[in-house]
Amino acid sequence: MSLDPAAAAALPRVKVVGTGLLGASIGLGLTAGGAGVVLADPSPTALALATDLGAGSVFAPAARDADDIGLVVVAAPPDVTAGAVLAELAAHPGATVTDVASVKSGILAEVAARGGDLSRYVGGHPMAGRERSGPVAARGDLFIGRPWVVCAGAKADGERVDVVRRLALALGATPVVMDAREHDASVAVVSHAPQVAASLVAARLRQAPKRAVELAGQGLRDVTRIASSDPLLWAQILAANAGPVLDVLRALRSDLEGVISGLESIAEEGGDGPAPGARAAVARVVADGNLGRELIPGKHGGQATRYAVVTVVVPDAPGSLARLFADIGDAGVNVEELGLEHAPGRAVGLVEVSVLPPVRERLEAALAAAGWRVVA
Amino acid sequence: MSLDPAAAAALPRVKVVGTGLLGASIGLGLTAGGAGVVLADPSPTALALATDLGAGSVFAPAARDADDIGLVVVAAPPDVTAGAVLAELAAHPGATVTDVASVKSGILAEVAARGGDLSRYVGGHPMAGRERSGPVAARGDLFIGRPWVVCAGAKADGERVDVVRRLALALGATPVVMDAREHDASVAVVSHAPQVAASLVAARLRQAPKRAVELAGQGLRDVTRIASSDPLLWAQILAANAGPVLDVLRALRSDLEGVISGLESIAEEGGDGPAPGARAAVARVVADGNLGRELIPGKHGGQATRYAVVTVVVPDAPGSLARLFADIGDAGVNVEELGLEHAPGRAVGLVEVSVLPPVRERLEAALAAAGWRVVA
Repeated sequence: MSLDPAAAAALPRVKVVGTGLLGASIGLGLTAGGAGVVLADPSPTALALATDLGAGSVFAPAARDADDIGLVVVAAPPDVTAGAVLAELAAHPGATVTDVASVKSGILAEVAARGGDLSRYVGGHPMAGRERSGPVAARGDLFIGRPWVVCAGAKADGERVDVVRRLALALGATPVVMDAREHDASVAVVSHAPQVAASLVAARLRQAPKRAVELAGQGLRDVTRIASSDPLLWAQILAANAGPVLDVLRALRSDLEGVISGLESIAEEGGDGPAPGARAAVARVVADGNLGRELIPGKHGGQATRYAVVTVVVPDAPGSLARLFADIGDAGVNVEELGLEHAPGRAVGLVEVSVLPPVRERLEAALAAAGWRVVA
Repeated sequence: MSLDPAAAAALPRVKVVGTGLLGASIGLGLTAGGAGVVLADPSPTALALATDLGAGSVFAPAARDADDIGLVVVAAPPDVTAGAVLAELAAHPGATVTDVASVKSGILAEVAARGGDLSRYVGGHPMAGRERSGPVAARGDLFIGRPWVVCAGAKADGERVDVVRRLALALGATPVVMDAREHDASVAVVSHAPQVAASLVAARLRQAPKRAVELAGQGLRDVTRIASSDPLLWAQILAANAGPVLDVLRALRSDLEGVISGLESIAEEGGDGPAPGARAAVARVVADGNLGRELIPGKHGGQATRYAVVTVVVPDAPGSLARLFADIGDAGVNVEELGLEHAPGRAVGLVEVSVLPPVRERLEAALAAAGWRVVA
């Protein structure tokens, strides 16, 4: 998957309102594809940064820009999105208006309640983001290969829905058309409840025995990675999707009660009684997790490329990585992803080099020949 | 960070009881280091496979082997470990006996209750594993750079504790000495409760709207990766550590109640009332997660070091990383962590280089002088 310049060039002139991570990334991707993009942001600093980065030119309300806009993308914080959508519908009476907020029913309801033109508003939600925010973190390829939910309300014009679909395609994303209610229930379970769970697990570390975190492994790092997210943004998102998130969290609480009850039965028996039912209840939660985990697409979905990982032991000293990457370059191999694994208490690191699967063996042989210790 | 052949060669003759993933990996690593290793397993097939792989030779009870063993490593399933430890203490009256089970207090208590020699038993827990199991998945380098908890009971002989420490060092692991209670409380919070949380989140996907999983992103994949774990093994582990796991899960439940109450207040007001206290409660959980997440150690163990991150734009071509790290090395700067933002279909990547804060400016200047584009 990649940016689609043909789709970008076929878009009407686009106004992006809000030049944070998502808005600036949309501007960068569309501009790269040849679309005409103008930018607006209440912060002059953010706006100047986004134009400097090449995300588009500054929107000039007095110029022909105002009449010329065919598509407005509102990329504002969730709690001001509906107001911005209404303002843009009014400012550009011929334009299709979409947004990128991560909860959709409330915005649609507010736009409807305040008399917005529902034939021209088509909500959107690109399933992409980064831990970092702001235009500096923006990338034109942020949406490549990601789902982009297009929420067509019942009154939305078919052609307007199609423009938003083509916006997603221009940015290399995969449009997924669903209604706002289905979207909100879906993100509650695949995004919002997992965020709460990750935060709850990470928060427990604050009361852990002092040296517990020395034993942290990759499992804990994975479970808690998204716990680094922005609290204020997430309070907005969770509040905006309170109903669907509650449905998931209450069910999760009920499952958690089952685990706790099972473990209480086991603990009462001193840990070595039979308690077959209690043990089965505990095993069932893990088994149910297996089944749920298997539903996640990806391994055979073809959307995400699977790389082969070559792990190399590297002395923790200036110049080591230079030598390693010189040897990788000499082998003519391109690095797709890389990471340096923490080595608690050791002045050495494990570098994980992700490469396309066909070149894995060649790289391993080349590195071994060059004297590197490759962990099989 | 590597296997330590000197430490391996200095070990007494080692008997490994149980030739699954951990036992066979221990045998492979010690044999590679020059230690004398004999293997035992109730399954003749597993035993033959482990010896074929080079993990050691078959233990012969009738031969001189029996008198000659200085260290026994019990690598059996958790629920039969205590029994195996007792049997080995009896069978080898001069040997130190250790194990690799992931819960320690219960085993120590059972060995004590059944009259085992506590001066010679020193529990252990290497914090390593793979998603795959069995001797076929075994690797002599499985433990390199990982913590290896050494649980010295109050009655354990100092020299016996040292032998188990040297076992860990021989395999390239980092020994962490703590008592069984601290160990069990620690793994409850860094491993067992996160496993339950990951399973609970993944299990919710089974009741999700049909197309919800189409929207799954990397966050969900990360949170639920360990939800693919073996239910029977985990039922054993959680049951064996029921008390400490309950402490964590009850606290987590209490935090979850807080989120649910907050969202209920918000939902009752239709999502757009002020509810400042409720929103603050929701934000606080995410903020507490931020703080907990920051406790997870970075390199060199101990508390997480805050590194300064220098982000560099790098052409996506063989040799680019080599040039970059050569320039970093020329600047005399050591890289603490690094990451590559991979951008499919894009001509450049972003390399994030983490360095100690005092050298950040110098590195940025050196890279800019060398012609690199450093992202502010």
